[in-house]
Amino acid sequence: MTQSNPQLLANIRVVLARTSHPGNIGAAARAMKTMGLSQLVLVEPAVFPNSQADAMASGAIDVLADARVCSTLAEALADTTLALGVSARRRDIVAEILMPQQAAVRLLTEAQAAPVALVFGNETSGLSNEELSLCQGLVTIAANPQYSSLNLAAAVQVLSYEVRRVWLDQPGWPDRELDAASGAEIERFYGHLETALADLDFLHPGSPGKLMLKLRRLFSRTRLSREEVNILRGILSAAQQAKKAGTRPSNS
Amino acid sequence: MTQSNPQLLANIRVVLARTSHPGNIGAAARAMKTMGLSQLVLVEPAVFPNSQADAMASGAIDVLADARVCSTLAEALADTTLALGVSARRRDIVAEILMPQQAAVRLLTEAQAAPVALVFGNETSGLSNEELSLCQGLVTIAANPQYSSLNLAAAVQVLSYEVRRVWLDQPGWPDRELDAASGAEIERFYGHLETALADLDFLHPGSPGKLMLKLRRLFSRTRLSREEVNILRGILSAAQQAKKAGTRPSNS
Repeated sequence: MTQSNPQLLANIRVVLARTSHPGNIGAAARAMKTMGLSQLVLVEPAVFPNSQADAMASGAIDVLADARVCSTLAEALADTTLALGVSARRRDIVAEILMPQQAAVRLLTEAQAAPVALVFGNETSGLSNEELSLCQGLVTIAANPQYSSLNLAAAVQVLSYEVRRVWLDQPGWPDRELDAASGAEIERFYGHLETALADLDFLHPGSPGKLMLKLRRLFSRTRLSREEVNILRGILSAAQQAKKAGTRPSNS
Repeated sequence: MTQSNPQLLANIRVVLARTSHPGNIGAAARAMKTMGLSQLVLVEPAVFPNSQADAMASGAIDVLADARVCSTLAEALADTTLALGVSARRRDIVAEILMPQQAAVRLLTEAQAAPVALVFGNETSGLSNEELSLCQGLVTIAANPQYSSLNLAAAVQVLSYEVRRVWLDQPGWPDRELDAASGAEIERFYGHLETALADLDFLHPGSPGKLMLKLRRLFSRTRLSREEVNILRGILSAAQQAKKAGTRPSNS
């Protein structure tokens, strides 16, 4: 599975069943697009298309424009090989319950071959038993047991985020763009630092003791840039000059 | 340390800086509470308290009621030992960029000992450079490069979700690596640094310009320990004394 294959994301659709509030459809479209998902299917939306949906979609208006409207969930899932229903934890359903991350792995694996779906129910009543019966698994976000009420778009955001995270996961994040100082430049900086601290009588020359080690640890944690080394050495030079001026014979 | 220690979540605060729309504050409170976070701090909110915020908070009205309002970000972070700014990817900032999962691990590790913060900027302009300079790291959600515009509550939802996921996941927590200095201690160090550099004629007092910002970036990347702050301030004092001796009338 090539993780950076955009076709995988194009094969993952978000199905919103019986959504009551058009604003939630728009917000869900926005959440999807931020994570690179584009296939939205609406089953029996109460109101659609709608200006409030457009407003909440913000820059994801294209996702709304391309949304497919179906009259049954079965129709929305007809060409899919895997559909996972998103639901709060339900005691009445005997089904495998996946965490979002496991769901994302499943969906991406299957999306190599065919369209797959994440199915979200009505804002108030969730997925009906009939709707659940069309899903091959249940995804539950492990929310706060005292308050597990994610709104619809928030749930779409979390699941879409997990899909994208898993999709991106392998190569990791690229290196940050830092004009890092070389080892030699940093060693020269440490040499300068030690000399300057000796000049300031802050350490005994020849026995820098633990102090230099501590300072090295501090600066090595941070990966200094070239510019930062120059700034720090400028400060050291200024301190050395100040010290020299202070100990210079008074006739100068 | 048991993974389900609720004190860890109680030590993680969400800081919303200069939020324009009260509805977003409410939606953020709801997002937090679904994931078990309860500490909300608002820095200069445009409108608060507000009925729209209450409406969007839904069952998380208690999080809003307990929210603390501060006039500066420094005040909001004064007692924290780790603050991570949430931001879209920025090329102008040389800082360690964490993915949400890494950020969650860092925050939870540190939260064993002290309050920590996730900092979110204004809806339109994000975090200012000054605000970022108060953070020890940057978190970026790896969004769709073609459309990375998560709304504020969606970003809070994703980060809160990751915190909860990692919190539930991890069997235990490693000890924190260092006795981190608090935000207030670090601000006092920066104040001392600026004064000392002015004494050394290394910067013009009153117009520290970009230099202080660059130095803040350098030191915020590394997360200073208490001991390191003491060493650095000792060096600054030594340099100041040297300068004073140099400019003292020669009869001394």
